[in-house]
Order: sequence, then structure tokens, then C-alpha cells
Amino acid sequence: MTDVLSRRDLDFLLYEWLDVVALTSRKRFAEHSKDTFDAVLDLSADLAHKHFATHNKKADAHEPTMRPDGTVEMIPEVKTALDAYAAAGLIAGAFDESVGGMQLPTTVARAAMAWFQAANASTSSYPFLTIANANLLAEYGTEQQIDEYVRPMLEGRWFGTMCLSEPQAGSSLADITTRAVPQDDGSYRVTGTKMWISGGDHELTENIVHLVLAKTPGGGPGVKGISLFIVPKYLPGADGAAGERNDVTLVGLNHKMGNRGTTNTLLAFGDGTHTPGGKSGAVGFLVGEEHRGLSYMFHMMNEARIGVGFLAIALGYVGYRKSLDYATVRTQGRPLGAKDPASPPVPIIEHADVRRMLLAQKSYVEGALALGLYCSRLVDEHDTADDAATGDQATLLLDVLTPIAKSWPSQWCLEANSLAIQVHGGYGYTRDYDVEQYYRDNRLNPIHEGTHGIQGLDLLGRKVTMHDGAGLSLLGSKIAATVARARSLGGDATGYADALDTVWNRIVDITAALWAAGDAVAALANSSVYLEAFGHTVIAWMWLEQLIATEGKSGDFYDGKRMAARYFYTHELPKVGPQLDLLASGDRTTLDMNPSWF
Amino acid sequence: MTDVLSRRDLDFLLYEWLDVVALTSRKRFAEHSKDTFDAVLDLSADLAHKHFATHNKKADAHEPTMRPDGTVEMIPEVKTALDAYAAAGLIAGAFDESVGGMQLPTTVARAAMAWFQAANASTSSYPFLTIANANLLAEYGTEQQIDEYVRPMLEGRWFGTMCLSEPQAGSSLADITTRAVPQDDGSYRVTGTKMWISGGDHELTENIVHLVLAKTPGGGPGVKGISLFIVPKYLPGADGAAGERNDVTLVGLNHKMGNRGTTNTLLAFGDGTHTPGGKSGAVGFLVGEEHRGLSYMFHMMNEARIGVGFLAIALGYVGYRKSLDYATVRTQGRPLGAKDPASPPVPIIEHADVRRMLLAQKSYVEGALALGLYCSRLVDEHDTADDAATGDQATLLLDVLTPIAKSWPSQWCLEANSLAIQVHGGYGYTRDYDVEQYYRDNRLNPIHEGTHGIQGLDLLGRKVTMHDGAGLSLLGSKIAATVARARSLGGDATGYADALDTVWNRIVDITAALWAAGDAVAALANSSVYLEAFGHTVIAWMWLEQLIATEGKSGDFYDGKRMAARYFYTHELPKVGPQLDLLASGDRTTLDMNPSWF
Repeated sequence: MTDVLSRRDLDFLLYEWLDVVALTSRKRFAEHSKDTFDAVLDLSADLAHKHFATHNKKADAHEPTMRPDGTVEMIPEVKTALDAYAAAGLIAGAFDESVGGMQLPTTVARAAMAWFQAANASTSSYPFLTIANANLLAEYGTEQQIDEYVRPMLEGRWFGTMCLSEPQAGSSLADITTRAVPQDDGSYRVTGTKMWISGGDHELTENIVHLVLAKTPGGGPGVKGISLFIVPKYLPGADGAAGERNDVTLVGLNHKMGNRGTTNTLLAFGDGTHTPGGKSGAVGFLVGEEHRGLSYMFHMMNEARIGVGFLAIALGYVGYRKSLDYATVRTQGRPLGAKDPASPPVPIIEHADVRRMLLAQKSYVEGALALGLYCSRLVDEHDTADDAATGDQATLLLDVLTPIAKSWPSQWCLEANSLAIQVHGGYGYTRDYDVEQYYRDNRLNPIHEGTHGIQGLDLLGRKVTMHDGAGLSLLGSKIAATVARARSLGGDATGYADALDTVWNRIVDITAALWAAGDAVAALANSSVYLEAFGHTVIAWMWLEQLIATEGKSGDFYDGKRMAARYFYTHELPKVGPQLDLLASGDRTTLDMNPSWF
Repeated sequence: MTDVLSRRDLDFLLYEWLDVVALTSRKRFAEHSKDTFDAVLDLSADLAHKHFATHNKKADAHEPTMRPDGTVEMIPEVKTALDAYAAAGLIAGAFDESVGGMQLPTTVARAAMAWFQAANASTSSYPFLTIANANLLAEYGTEQQIDEYVRPMLEGRWFGTMCLSEPQAGSSLADITTRAVPQDDGSYRVTGTKMWISGGDHELTENIVHLVLAKTPGGGPGVKGISLFIVPKYLPGADGAAGERNDVTLVGLNHKMGNRGTTNTLLAFGDGTHTPGGKSGAVGFLVGEEHRGLSYMFHMMNEARIGVGFLAIALGYVGYRKSLDYATVRTQGRPLGAKDPASPPVPIIEHADVRRMLLAQKSYVEGALALGLYCSRLVDEHDTADDAATGDQATLLLDVLTPIAKSWPSQWCLEANSLAIQVHGGYGYTRDYDVEQYYRDNRLNPIHEGTHGIQGLDLLGRKVTMHDGAGLSLLGSKIAATVARARSLGGDATGYADALDTVWNRIVDITAALWAAGDAVAALANSSVYLEAFGHTVIAWMWLEQLIATEGKSGDFYDGKRMAARYFYTHELPKVGPQLDLLASGDRTTLDMNPSWF
């Protein structure tokens, strides 16, 4: 069986480029070493191949169903896999030792998780959401909330969700109508309907911890009135076990094109199906302060956005590896110009167009993986930097990069999956092979955790303008440093450095020009195009970084990196040119289009 | 229910642009008029909505299965729909009256078929293949073969297939191993295995007429030794009904990501399961002359390639229309800069990024439909031109455009389907809505009837160089004529004309430069990039043609056409620039990549 990721590539990115071993000099990671990191990666690869990859197709073919009694039925392999994952302590990997964690760097924890995401996207989503939920509570919850909810989640006895969207309000959180009314005992009763809740119900764990956005009486209009609540499926019992059933009810499961193994649910809160404490209404517990719910949720959301990027990367990566394997063993046709039609067919990797499809995939998935790990490294910097200024810088840079880390892999690692199908020809279109599932699974990623369009608005409308453009400037200084190092190397690196420098300077100029008139409607008319151009530029930066890291090293692996960098700079980065021309022109086509003309 | 295509757009393309009514002055179409064309289109729309669209989702959810006795089970709605289609005489639409046809122009017949393709891609494939099969036999078959096979196919009593690929030879027909051995009675016995045969078995009709490529003893190596045979599932009986069972056996059904309603089969010919005439071996009848099979098959293949383009267009089109409907009724969010967060949400079509996604879809599907119908008009010209030179010109132009008419919709109308999902947000990812199925169905089209890579090799390696570049020159003269007309209009049209002219001249120069050294390996290294740049240029030409056709006309419909043309020229055509730069640079990245470096 093909490994779902390349350990060699991870080693390169983690050790030869990002130098995660240097993190062990920080107090938080002092107990760690390259050996412990390797052990976690080895364990993850092993568990992912043994327990996750093995039921990926089965979970797709046998999606969860809702039983007449309202519970969820799914194939048993999911629970077996997740129990093994939890037993290995991986849910708590990056958490404090004080709550039972390993205090792994986020960079290593993300790399470890990527094995599971590549092996089985839908089963990996349960711990993925649980970790993000627990992270939020560890940051903003009370000691009691941490004891009651975070610990059982980190042990894998309970899982977590995030409940934001409602049927009438997907991207528009200002319009949520779920209400939370305070009770005399300090708790709240929550009433409303939440849509698209992944992992929203199942029998995998004893309990499910929902983090729910709701409005309290007297809150302001729009997003300002939103607060955040813990609403467990079962109220915590006296002994720390799941107790009385809360008034949270599974209304239905969504049936999706892909990602079928993850239950995706419509949940009713407080519809009276259950009567905790003798009355209807879902019992909820406020997290932090009232009306600050959205800011807390964005802590989880930003983490989830990077995580969705990783999910897209992992799916792109495994598709790349399987199509590479296929191209190596499948024989068909002869080299162009072969004189003898009776000569034996060659492996299809010998055909230039097949190599093009493989190089494109390689440049997408390895470029995106570099960005995902780079962003994770920024999280570690934020958490453990020696001085506050360095930590703040990491946070600022992460803020700017998050919409790219989410959207770019969602677009281009999906494209990689399409190419993986294409390399397989007709076989790739059948369910006998794996790649069509990756393509279906990956199509979710431009939608959830903020659609592609939302990421564009976030980047151009907020991230590059905030703090007077400080984030944009910071990213510019990082890119400039890379450009300077590359120029000093000469050869291809210098040419790429020049190209990147030129494109980046255009982005800076265009950003200023778009906002010069102070007209947000005009500035944001092509924000998705801006997002895509910005994204390709960031990935070009990641490729220049990787190219620099191969300097002076020889062997197939490094030659492959160099060729992928060359592919990205010759075939991909130039695509940014027309996008920047469009933005620079202040194009108003989308604004001038009257809906009645369609 | 939304119409699956726009009749208004078809009327514009057929009557206001391509002037198909002018064809009625030709002898072959003298019995026709705008009224008869309208009647066929109305009937097709009606049948497509009533019998095809209604089981599209059901056919996807309940794909055909193979019973223990080796026969195929499928939902009954497929047969009901196809019986209605056949009863309306539509299989024979474009055929000679002498064989029971209506002698419709191909342009009208293709437009009529597009309704069925948009309503239900997989059910439409059965008559689609039957028509292509019958067309081949009507051209190259003997009178007896036409009576025995073409007539029952046109009546819908028998269906047809094309059997080219084998498990070890998909794109590489030189490597087929199916053998045909001549018998004393003039028939052949065929032995071999054919893969990916759409409609290869079913119980929809009394008989199935397979057109099979096979090699005869003594034939040359490679494709030169290939001959074409009729191999019916049941040998024709004395009374014209299906007679004795031939030795053709369904080995298995392929299970696909989409297009599930069309059986796609592995067929064994002559494996001894049946013993027609008392001995094993599938009885086949030679079509035309020995060793010319591939040239005959390309008659069918070229028609099928245009038809696959239409299938992709139709799927793109219906997805566009459904996402347009959704964007009009789904409310969410507020316009940028809206001050009052309590103001009611607006239909999402009010958001610029949603309009971008709709404009992109519109420019793709209407641009592609224009090309598909333009190519169909060339077929009519080939068939009925007043002088041979005009007919030959039409054939030459069609030869050059066929790889574009197949590949461009397969790529960009699939992208349209992705955008249709995106407009729907999370709902679009569920099977409760239609668009995810279109996306899955459409993903087949870059694969079958010659993959994307094969189309690129065909275009750059053969079509633009054949006859000393006569096809390329002819296309250039057509584009130049459009450019000249557009320039005379002034305004936007002049700017678009200049842009198109510039790009086209670059393509001509680059084509010459690529072949200047006579090194096919180097010339074809980026043939897929060439295909894509060429395709976008051709569609830009189609948009300029449409823009000219709106001249002097007012109203929403024409304003929409003008905006879609503007979208294509501002957002799409510029993408060609970097592709041409890459080609002009003689980039060798894909050639220099060593397989061991991946």
C-alpha cells in the first residue's frame, strides 16, 4: 500500500527547513527532542495506515444513517479507529501537560494529524473538531469548564463540535436566531436550530460537547449580540460521567457528495424533545463574557481554517501519491517518435503530459503543505516566543496568511485531485480506485469554515488593511528576506526571486490603489481574484523557501524539489499577471451586471 | 421546475446568429422551416423535462446492477423515457428520409439532443451512442447492413455502441489485441475483451449493435492492422428481429463517480459463453474494407467528440440555470456598506462575488454552446454545401475545431458546475440539490472519447499542421473576418477585436516556432497548455461573434450577452497570455523532469 503522505517530505519541511528541533530550547517543549517528534510521526503514520486508511472507502460507501429512535448508525470501524487514536494520546498532543497533554509543538501535531486526514478525511474530522473545541475552552473556559469538558475530550471519551450556522444563516452569522435565556442558577436555556454541524451526533463517545453561538436578551443587533455557550448532549454528572440528557435533538443527517463518513447534522436545541431538570430548553453554560461569543469562536474558527487547509492538502497529497504510483506501473503507448509500433508500451510517466500532471500536483500539494506547516510554526511562535513582540508578529502574520492557508489548498489541492483522476484515465473515474473519492471529499473544503468568497473579503477587506496595513508590511518584509537570500544564490533562484519580488510589489501597489478611494464596494468587487493572486504569490514564496533549503544538497529528493519549484515559477506564478492586471484596472464587470440580465 | 436549457438562448444562437433557417433553401432541408425546427425543439424540451429530468437523481442513486444470470437491471424509468424518445422519431432526426429519418439539419438535431443531455446525461447517452453508430453504418455500411442494423436502431428497437478500448489499451489503440478471423461464409469470428463500453449491455432494447475494432490475420502492426466489425448481441433473424444469441458476454459493470445511469461495461467477445452457429466466437461482419477500421471509427469518434462537448455544455448549462435560480431566491447577508444590521437579508445575487460566479458560468456555458452549434453548422455545410470547395472548407475547419469543441467544454463547463455548487454553499454539496451530480457527471468528459492530453496532441501534433497548416490558416481567416466586423462597430467590440487579433497572431507565430526545429518531442512538450490557450481564444471568438449579433438590439437578454462577452474578455481571455509566454519560451520543464525525482 502506498503511504498516504511522504515522510521524507515531512522530514525535509520540519527539520531541514522549519527547524522544529530548535523549538525544544523553549521551556514549553523542553521535554521534547527530534526523537519524540519522530516517534509521534511514526506512530501517526502507523495508526493512520492501520486503522484509518483501511475503512476510508467503506465509510464512503456506507454513510451514517439515522435510526428510527433518532440515534446514528455507522460502520464500527470508525469507532475502532478513533479509540485507537485517543488511546495513543493524540487528541491531547499539543495540550498542556496540566490537562494531560504532551505539549507537542503545533507544527508537529499538525503534521501528525495530516497522516490521519490523508488516510481518511471523514474519520479524522471527529478528533479535528474535538481538538479545536477543547483548544477554545482551554483558552476561554473556567477551571471548572476545563475540568468538566476539556479533560474528557482530550481523553477521547467525549467529542466536540462547533455550532455556528443556521438553515437561514450560513455565512451570515449576524442573522442567527438561536436564543439563550439566563436562568436563576447562572446557566442558560438555549433554543434554536443549527445547520451543517459536523459530528453533531453519533454514538462514538459517551457525550458530545457543542459550542453554540446564540443571542441573549438585550444584546445588540447583528454579530455584536452573539454569545458563546457550552451545550453538552448530556449534562455532566456528579462523577464526571455523562449525566442527564440535555434538550439537544438530531433532526436529520445531511447527505453529501463526499466526506460521507462525517455525520453532518441539523440539530434542534430546546425543542422540548428532552426536559433536563424537568423542563424543555437546552441547558447551556456561558463561555467567557456575554456578547463576546464571536471573538471566542474566531479563535476556534481560525484554527479550524488552518485545519481545513490541511485537510485539503492531505487529500491532495494522497491523490498525488496514488497517481504517481499508478503512472509508474501502468504501461500504455510509446514515446513520441518511437519508430517501432511493436515495441513494448512504456509506463505512462514517460509521457510528458503525464509528468506535467504529476508536477502540477507535486507543486500544489508540497507548496501547500509548506504553507500549512509554516502557519503552524507561527502558532508555536505565538505560544512560546521569547519576547512578546516576536509573538505578536507571529500572530499578525498568521492573521494575514490564514485566508490563504484555508482557501489556496481548497482550490488547488482539489485541482490536484482532478489531475490524479486524469492520470488514472477511465480507471480514475471508477470507485474501484481511490482518487474519485478524494475529489469528492475535497470539494467540501472551499465551502465550509468560510467559503472562498468569504476568505477573499476577509483578506482584502480586513487582513491587509488592519493596523494600517501592518500585516501586509510584515509579510512583505518576510518575502523580501527570502528574495534577498535567493538572489545571493544565483542561478534559477535569482530569476525566481526577481519574479516573486515583482509580483509582490504589484500586490502592495494594487492593494493601496484599491483602497485609495475609500469605496469598499468598488475595492472588493474582485476580492476573490485578489485572494487567488495573493495565494499563488504566497505559494511561490513557499517554493522559493524550499528551493533555498535544498541548496548544496544532492539526490533525487532535492532534484525533485528543485523541479517542482521550477514548475511553479514557469507554469503557475505567471497566472497571477492577468489577475493583477484586472485588479489594477479597477474592473467593475461584476458590479455593472444587473441581476435581471442573466 | 427550472428549464434545463434556455430556449431564448437557443433561438438567439440558431436564428439570430447561425441563421439555420437559411438552410431550408438547400435541397436536403427543403421540407423544413422555422416552424418545423421550433416544433422539434419544443417537443424535445417537453419530453426532456417530462421523461428525462424526472428520473435523473433516481438513476444516479440506483445505478444499474448485474443480475446473477448476467443480465442488467436498472430502474424502469430509463426505458420509459427512451421509448418516448424513440417514438417521437428523434433517433432518426438528422437521418435520410430513405431510412425513416426527418432530414433535420445537424445543428437543429444537436440543439434538440442538448435538452435531453441537460435533463439526464446518463439516459441521453444511449440514443447518443446509437445515433453515432447508425451514422457510421449509414456512411460506410452496405445496403444490407443499413437495412439490418441502421433501421432498427433508428426505430429505437436496437441500440448501438462503439467498442475501442481494452483493459490494457485505453488511449493507445495500436495495442488492442482483439482478433477477427475470417470464416468461409464471409463473416468473421471475433475474440477479445473490450473495456469502458458505454451502453455495452442492458435490457432496454431487443438487441445491441456493437461496432468493434479488431485485428485480422496478416494485418500490419499498430493501428494500420485494425478493421471494424459489426458484432450484434443477437444475430439478425430472418424476419429482421433479433435472432440467435451471439458470443458477446457481459463480464462486469464499472462503478463510476457519476454518469451512473449509463451502463459502462467490460465485454468478452468470443469467450465461448454462447455458441452461435454451434461454435464459440463472436460472429462479426466487416464494415467497409479490412485495415481501414480506424478511419471509419474516426467518423464516429469525431461526431462523438462534438457530442461529448455538448454533453459537457448541457451539464454546465443546467447547473448554471439552477444556481441562477438559487441565487435569486436565497437570501443572505446585506450589501457591503449597509448601515443597518437589522435590515432584511438580500438575495445572494446582490453580492458581487455571486454575480462573478454566475457571470463566469454564463460565459463558459453560452460560449461553449455557441461553439458546439457552430461546429454542427459546419457539419451541415459539409453535408449540403452548394459547391464542393465550400464543403471541403467546412470539413477542414471542423477538423481543427473538434479537439476544442470536445476539450474546452469538458474543462470549463465542469468548472461551471463547481461554481454552481459554490453558489449553493453547503446545500450545493448535498444530494438534496442537483448540482453536485452535474459536477460528478461532468468529470467524465475530460476522460472519454480521447482524454484532454490526447486532444492536445491531436490539435498541436496534427490538426494545425496538416495540409501545410491549411486548417490553421482557414480558422485565422474566419477570426480575421469577425475581428474586422467587430472593429467596424466601435466601442467595446473594437477593443475585444484588438485583443483577439493579438492573441490569435501570437498563436500562429508560436505554432510555427514550435515546429520550426522539427523536433516533435520538444514541440509537443506543452501540448495541453497549447490546447487550453487555443481553446480560450476560440471561445473569445465565439463571444465576439455573439456580441456582433446583439448589435442594435435592446433588452435584458442582449444586455446579458454583452456583459458575458465583457466578462470573457476582461476575466478570461487574458489568462491566455502567460500560457502563450510559456509556449513561446520553449519551456522544457516536463521533459527535464526525471521520473525518479518525483
